[in-house]
Amino acid sequence: MGRPFRTEHDLLGEISVPAGAYYGAHTARALVNFPITGETLAARPHLIAALATVKQAAAAANAELGALDQRRAGAIQAACAEIRAGALREEFVVDLIQGGAGTSTNMNANEVIANRALELLGHDRGDYAVVHPLDHVNLGQSTNDVYPTAVKLALDRYLAGLLGALGDLRGAFAAKASEFADVLKMGRTQLQDAVPMTLGQEFAAFAATLAEDEQRLAEARLLLHELNLGGTAIGTGLNARPGYRDLAVGHLRSLTGIATLVSAPDLVEATADVGVFVQLSGVLKRVAVKLSKICNDLRLLSSGPQAGFGEITLPARQAGSSIMPGKVNPVICEAVNQIAFEIIGHDVTVTLAAEGGQLQLNAFEPIIARALTAGLGHLTAGLGVLTEHCVRGITAHREHLAATVAASTGLVTALGPALGYETASALALEAHRTGRPALELVRERGLLTEDRLRALTTPEALTGRRSA
Amino acid sequence: MGRPFRTEHDLLGEISVPAGAYYGAHTARALVNFPITGETLAARPHLIAALATVKQAAAAANAELGALDQRRAGAIQAACAEIRAGALREEFVVDLIQGGAGTSTNMNANEVIANRALELLGHDRGDYAVVHPLDHVNLGQSTNDVYPTAVKLALDRYLAGLLGALGDLRGAFAAKASEFADVLKMGRTQLQDAVPMTLGQEFAAFAATLAEDEQRLAEARLLLHELNLGGTAIGTGLNARPGYRDLAVGHLRSLTGIATLVSAPDLVEATADVGVFVQLSGVLKRVAVKLSKICNDLRLLSSGPQAGFGEITLPARQAGSSIMPGKVNPVICEAVNQIAFEIIGHDVTVTLAAEGGQLQLNAFEPIIARALTAGLGHLTAGLGVLTEHCVRGITAHREHLAATVAASTGLVTALGPALGYETASALALEAHRTGRPALELVRERGLLTEDRLRALTTPEALTGRRSA
Amino acid sequence: MGRPFRTEHDLLGEISVPAGAYYGAHTARALVNFPITGETLAARPHLIAALATVKQAAAAANAELGALDQRRAGAIQAACAEIRAGALREEFVVDLIQGGAGTSTNMNANEVIANRALELLGHDRGDYAVVHPLDHVNLGQSTNDVYPTAVKLALDRYLAGLLGALGDLRGAFAAKASEFADVLKMGRTQLQDAVPMTLGQEFAAFAATLAEDEQRLAEARLLLHELNLGGTAIGTGLNARPGYRDLAVGHLRSLTGIATLVSAPDLVEATADVGVFVQLSGVLKRVAVKLSKICNDLRLLSSGPQAGFGEITLPARQAGSSIMPGKVNPVICEAVNQIAFEIIGHDVTVTLAAEGGQLQLNAFEPIIARALTAGLGHLTAGLGVLTEHCVRGITAHREHLAATVAASTGLVTALGPALGYETASALALEAHRTGRPALELVRERGLLTEDRLRALTTPEALTGRRSA
Amino acid sequence: MGRPFRTEHDLLGEISVPAGAYYGAHTARALVNFPITGETLAARPHLIAALATVKQAAAAANAELGALDQRRAGAIQAACAEIRAGALREEFVVDLIQGGAGTSTNMNANEVIANRALELLGHDRGDYAVVHPLDHVNLGQSTNDVYPTAVKLALDRYLAGLLGALGDLRGAFAAKASEFADVLKMGRTQLQDAVPMTLGQEFAAFAATLAEDEQRLAEARLLLHELNLGGTAIGTGLNARPGYRDLAVGHLRSLTGIATLVSAPDLVEATADVGVFVQLSGVLKRVAVKLSKICNDLRLLSSGPQAGFGEITLPARQAGSSIMPGKVNPVICEAVNQIAFEIIGHDVTVTLAAEGGQLQLNAFEPIIARALTAGLGHLTAGLGVLTEHCVRGITAHREHLAATVAASTGLVTALGPALGYETASALALEAHRTGRPALELVRERGLLTEDRLRALTTPEALTGRRSA
Repeated sequence: MGRPFRTEHDLLGEISVPAGAYYGAHTARALVNFPITGETLAARPHLIAALATVKQAAAAANAELGALDQRRAGAIQAACAEIRAGALREEFVVDLIQGGAGTSTNMNANEVIANRALELLGHDRGDYAVVHPLDHVNLGQSTNDVYPTAVKLALDRYLAGLLGALGDLRGAFAAKASEFADVLKMGRTQLQDAVPMTLGQEFAAFAATLAEDEQRLAEARLLLHELNLGGTAIGTGLNARPGYRDLAVGHLRSLTGIATLVSAPDLVEATADVGVFVQLSGVLKRVAVKLSKICNDLRLLSSGPQAGFGEITLPARQAGSSIMPGKVNPVICEAVNQIAFEIIGHDVTVTLAAEGGQLQLNAFEPIIARALTAGLGHLTAGLGVLTEHCVRGITAHREHLAATVAASTGLVTALGPALGYETASALALEAHRTGRPALELVRERGLLTEDRLRALTTPEALTGRRSA
Repeated sequence: MGRPFRTEHDLLGEISVPAGAYYGAHTARALVNFPITGETLAARPHLIAALATVKQAAAAANAELGALDQRRAGAIQAACAEIRAGALREEFVVDLIQGGAGTSTNMNANEVIANRALELLGHDRGDYAVVHPLDHVNLGQSTNDVYPTAVKLALDRYLAGLLGALGDLRGAFAAKASEFADVLKMGRTQLQDAVPMTLGQEFAAFAATLAEDEQRLAEARLLLHELNLGGTAIGTGLNARPGYRDLAVGHLRSLTGIATLVSAPDLVEATADVGVFVQLSGVLKRVAVKLSKICNDLRLLSSGPQAGFGEITLPARQAGSSIMPGKVNPVICEAVNQIAFEIIGHDVTVTLAAEGGQLQLNAFEPIIARALTAGLGHLTAGLGVLTEHCVRGITAHREHLAATVAASTGLVTALGPALGYETASALALEAHRTGRPALELVRERGLLTEDRLRALTTPEALTGRRSA
Repeated sequence: MGRPFRTEHDLLGEISVPAGAYYGAHTARALVNFPITGETLAARPHLIAALATVKQAAAAANAELGALDQRRAGAIQAACAEIRAGALREEFVVDLIQGGAGTSTNMNANEVIANRALELLGHDRGDYAVVHPLDHVNLGQSTNDVYPTAVKLALDRYLAGLLGALGDLRGAFAAKASEFADVLKMGRTQLQDAVPMTLGQEFAAFAATLAEDEQRLAEARLLLHELNLGGTAIGTGLNARPGYRDLAVGHLRSLTGIATLVSAPDLVEATADVGVFVQLSGVLKRVAVKLSKICNDLRLLSSGPQAGFGEITLPARQAGSSIMPGKVNPVICEAVNQIAFEIIGHDVTVTLAAEGGQLQLNAFEPIIARALTAGLGHLTAGLGVLTEHCVRGITAHREHLAATVAASTGLVTALGPALGYETASALALEAHRTGRPALELVRERGLLTEDRLRALTTPEALTGRRSA
Repeated sequence: MGRPFRTEHDLLGEISVPAGAYYGAHTARALVNFPITGETLAARPHLIAALATVKQAAAAANAELGALDQRRAGAIQAACAEIRAGALREEFVVDLIQGGAGTSTNMNANEVIANRALELLGHDRGDYAVVHPLDHVNLGQSTNDVYPTAVKLALDRYLAGLLGALGDLRGAFAAKASEFADVLKMGRTQLQDAVPMTLGQEFAAFAATLAEDEQRLAEARLLLHELNLGGTAIGTGLNARPGYRDLAVGHLRSLTGIATLVSAPDLVEATADVGVFVQLSGVLKRVAVKLSKICNDLRLLSSGPQAGFGEITLPARQAGSSIMPGKVNPVICEAVNQIAFEIIGHDVTVTLAAEGGQLQLNAFEPIIARALTAGLGHLTAGLGVLTEHCVRGITAHREHLAATVAASTGLVTALGPALGYETASALALEAHRTGRPALELVRERGLLTEDRLRALTTPEALTGRRSA
């Protein structure tokens, strides 16, 4: 019977590691120190892949500089390539909330890569004289440049997903805008009836506002491409060979296909600063705020069916109540609202973590990484459902909408320039008090000719969709 | 013609002070250092009065202990009494945002009191050998015990105001609850028609929820009564005479009439900790959240007039639009919403300031004091308007409400126990699809006897107001 | 070979469910609608147990009232008892982020309990004519009273855990306070040397401040014991039998052993209001803020080892750096800081969710429940590590601390009352400028007799630990 | 003796206005409705000027289109020009917190401009038949396009101020970076001694990080230049003449000199959306976070003087304590910290206000405008003081810094590549345990030749400032 554990050692002495584990002593310490959330690196595949990408680029650069022999470098690169392809994910076992500015994450990666490289070279796990997690896999690197670089690359992947989901949602709104282009309705300001518009204009505005969000996210994404790799511990590049930085970043460009990856101009600054994460979080919050507002609007417009706005119907997705038979609720919108609230809270978490950075490093990058990747992932998932199971199936209550426009005193606004604000105000008050349509009162009193009245109240005139 | 400035000096050398000013050198430095908001201590009369109260209590205690002679003590106490009565407010000139954990505020008070005491004793301003701002007015004290003590006393006053305003609002809602006790309407969950209730129940819930808030605020208020006066610089009481603490707190009880004022059991802890402010801010945030929800509800219920819920009308307070004649908006509710948003933001400010405290002191108490006093003041003012100019004048659209209940499929829920969830669901769907009242369908199919149907749908049965 | 799926149906038609699943159609819909986080109810065992507890209490009450026959009631209660003991956890599959105010959670529970009850009675899954998830398991209930009741009971359990962890940490600090009772050191305000204290006083203050937090949490916990069970859909109690509410809450008291469980006085208010969660979140945030401050202090005091404060040493737990050999970092403190930042962010999430409630219900309770249970769980875990692996092993650098006291100009403060503020200030400045100890200057100039000087600077006088 | 009041009327009837007031009935209503903060429009001169600018541009456009006769248009434009130059500021009396989406602000401006135009034309105040606040001054406009346009123009001005202040601060840090270019010190990560760097590098990083902030702010500023003027009530342009929008925006470009002002492509979207304010607030928060971190660093580096880091001295600005003679505190840094905390809180306020927007308008723009303008103003003021009274006067403790580098075990890192991580770790631990310099141990054991050792530990090698 084989022994189930092997013994490794570190600064603090010996420690047991499961014999079959690819991770080692440093990771084992972290498991004891951080039993916090139960959510491990394995829950963030993009981050694992990004760590392996950085390690692969570093090994390639070190080999070219003669700092690492070809045999070790080759094995390390091969191990990294496997991990990038999805292998060994379950070996990334450290908790996402961890002290140490990502050191345990970096150590976990170093150890898994070293042991897989050892295996590829025909050696036992733990035979670190042959391939050492720190002296070889981490050569010329520090957690302080590896970790933020990997987090940025991972965020780039998450952003790609979100941008795709936003584009789909925008498309769904644009399609509805076309479908509803001629559906006249009352626009509202401050929840009070205002002036007419079309339902198409309302949905086109949803599409337009998302297009702006996509632009802002794309701008924030570009900022992620400025890296501090090569700065090592505090940005001075101590222990990285001359030329390493440029080579390593060049390999990152090749491996990721992201042509805009560059070195930060001041690596000391770039190592201490987490401004890019605050910026991204702020933009993500903006997107969340706007999506929450859109979902609020959809819920309002579909409120009722009898005792609400009743302007549109969202697709029924599930029974809405355990006690009220036949009730259908806007559950998908509500889910997106909640994701938005989560992201807005995360923004405060990121803010506190960023503000807490001290001197040459921010020790709290792991919670920043956790918050941002969670928010991006949840929102991408939520928008997928919103697009497919809600927006695409929305229908309009055309007759009801037409009736509200006809009944509305809001039409009086269109007569304001012709009648003057004070006359029009008196008219609106009377219409409201008597319940009679305002236009009827105008006609009755002959305040405007029929032609003039009709010209002022065509759908085109009311909604501004005149031929420009 | 006299010279307009006098010269004072401090640690850093000489500095000019307006000849007539009651404040002195330390305050003059602060004016140069903190030209931030333009909002000065003078904007917080409760805080000025509280500072004077603390100084008066300290002088009395020091006199009793023989640390301060009767002549000086008497003059200092007299000056404090005048300030508490409203005098010299405009001499409190330092900015509310200031570094130094309130030192400039304490210095400003020390100097104004010293110079007024000098005046009472027939001496010139600046004649500090006679009455010294630090050696006499600040005797046995430090900013670090005086300032938080004064802030707590000031907050107690602001809370008294808010509690009064909340009580008035609660009373107004309760009166409306009586007025609307028999007005049947559809209750809503998730903005969808749910089951019937009365408008009175809806307004009674507003009153009930405010009553809870008043209790939570009253509990938080009590926590403010634990003081660190006598702890001096870091809570060790260095330079305060034995017995001073108890005497000083006793005088505070007498001067304020607050019998529950006590010394904290661990003054080192009490000096460093600002948990009580975080607690109060959290409770104030809770109150803000609930008031914002109430205002949201009022805006929803009064939405329309034609294309909205149209259940109630809020009193018209001003023309709602510069372009839409006759439009009336729920402006007072919107103002309260915005005050709530401000307070919720302030809670984050207070949180950051509290988290930033280090070791034996929190240097950021001034922003905490500013945020809390602003929020309390604004909310008290806003609630006054809400009560008087909005809630008291609300009217109900009884016919419309009755019609929505009659038309609603929500009545089906009341038949659920009799018919079973699945049969009731099918019925609701058919009613919704055909637009026919659900009860009509039940009758048509003879699913329930007329007696049973009637019993299940009386207002009393529907709204739970059966005789308990 | 058996078929792997069974067919169920609901309002929307037929849907396939895995043949062996205890959950049913409503849950299956939710799986399609909410593929958001991957974190399911199964990650919250206290919440699952609480749901089963509520269902058990309801069944017992309904049986006593004759609304449910004994056979069904018995089977339902037995199924609930099993789930409370930990069974069938993996059947609770709906995502923690879900629309619908918890409907899917309630439905998941109803279905699992119904199918397990069917099994106990010898029937097949899905044979709902015998035991129906809604007509029997959910009898007299609505998500809108069941879900918040269950969340409150679950939070009570999480709070018990946190209070235990806080008590342990407080004990560890108190033990260190005793150990360091005679270690003199410089206290600091605004990071500047202030006046002396003992390291024991510093640690005693940590213990004292946690004791206050425990009290605040205990107060907030009591508020959770006010329940809206029996209010059904909107608090009017529609479809719950007279007497049901009192019986059901009585059974909850028995089942949970929590004697303070009571019905809310206004169930309409209690159904719409989530103020208790906002309150709890605010108090939890306060606790987080204070623990973060404590961890900040520990990190400051242990900074160095050479170029920092160097006053204490935290136990080494893991290698601190992948590049800096021998470096040891305060990783456990940093983890707790990050948990605190998470909780502070969650408080904003809870705030937004609470503010977003509308009319008779808050649709966003699931995100509130998720945020609160996550924060409580993470903090409890983090404090366990902090106590055992950090605080218990802290050691003091006694010689270094003594040396800083001897060298400090802060001792001048103790001479202030004797010398006057201005003389003392000049002395301090000179000491600082010349680098000579301030007491030496006092002696040289004969400003005070040696006896007086000695009396003013004994450790007892300096630290306030004189015999009261 | 003249009567002190004149009577005006509006939708709600008659109302008294001070006879000499330039404002009128609508403003008088707002004074009653919003007695909230006491802080009026007069506290935001840039906003008043911006309102007048919009009105002037609109009048010019309307005159060109023939919608407004030249006499009225000329008088309105002249009145606006005066107000832009600073006149009549005290007539802008409405509270900054107000309901109505800015309606009262717009009304206040309309009335003041109308009455001043009347005066210029030789008419009495209130003679609105000649120049009407709504029919003439507000012609073709709505609060819903005027107010956000004015807010954006005002924010542009505030941003110009902040960018200037940031540039000055960056310059001051850059100058210190040069001054301290050769001052070697220990860099720190996680508050633990890491590896050497220069104090110049540390200050250069401050300058570099501010340069990035300036870029982000400049990008956000550009987004403000997209306007919805001409969209009127809900973006459909109802009541604005064809061609008006382009003319009006063209006049805005001329009047402001901002060439990048453009119309938004979708005015319905642009009227409802406040994303640009959320974006700006997010970026401003980022700037606040980073400045707070810088101030934290300055406070840490200057901590002591004896029992702290003691690396730099900040200029003494005022006596730091009312009880501790000679104590000097980092008060200006602390003030900037507090401004940052305020801004971070404001960001949450802005977020809530933005999320609360409904349908075609966000009613909560006034609190957004108040929060952003306050934050920008306070930060600009604080940075001015920070630059002039703090950063420019910072001095370094060169001997102390050199000594800490010599004593540090952090130098071992530089030997890591030569010795291997494990040997270097053991060495560091021994150095730390024995208190002996690590390099001495290396020499003693002959682990490296003297030449190699010297080459690895030159300042150039250690700090990465080798000739690239």
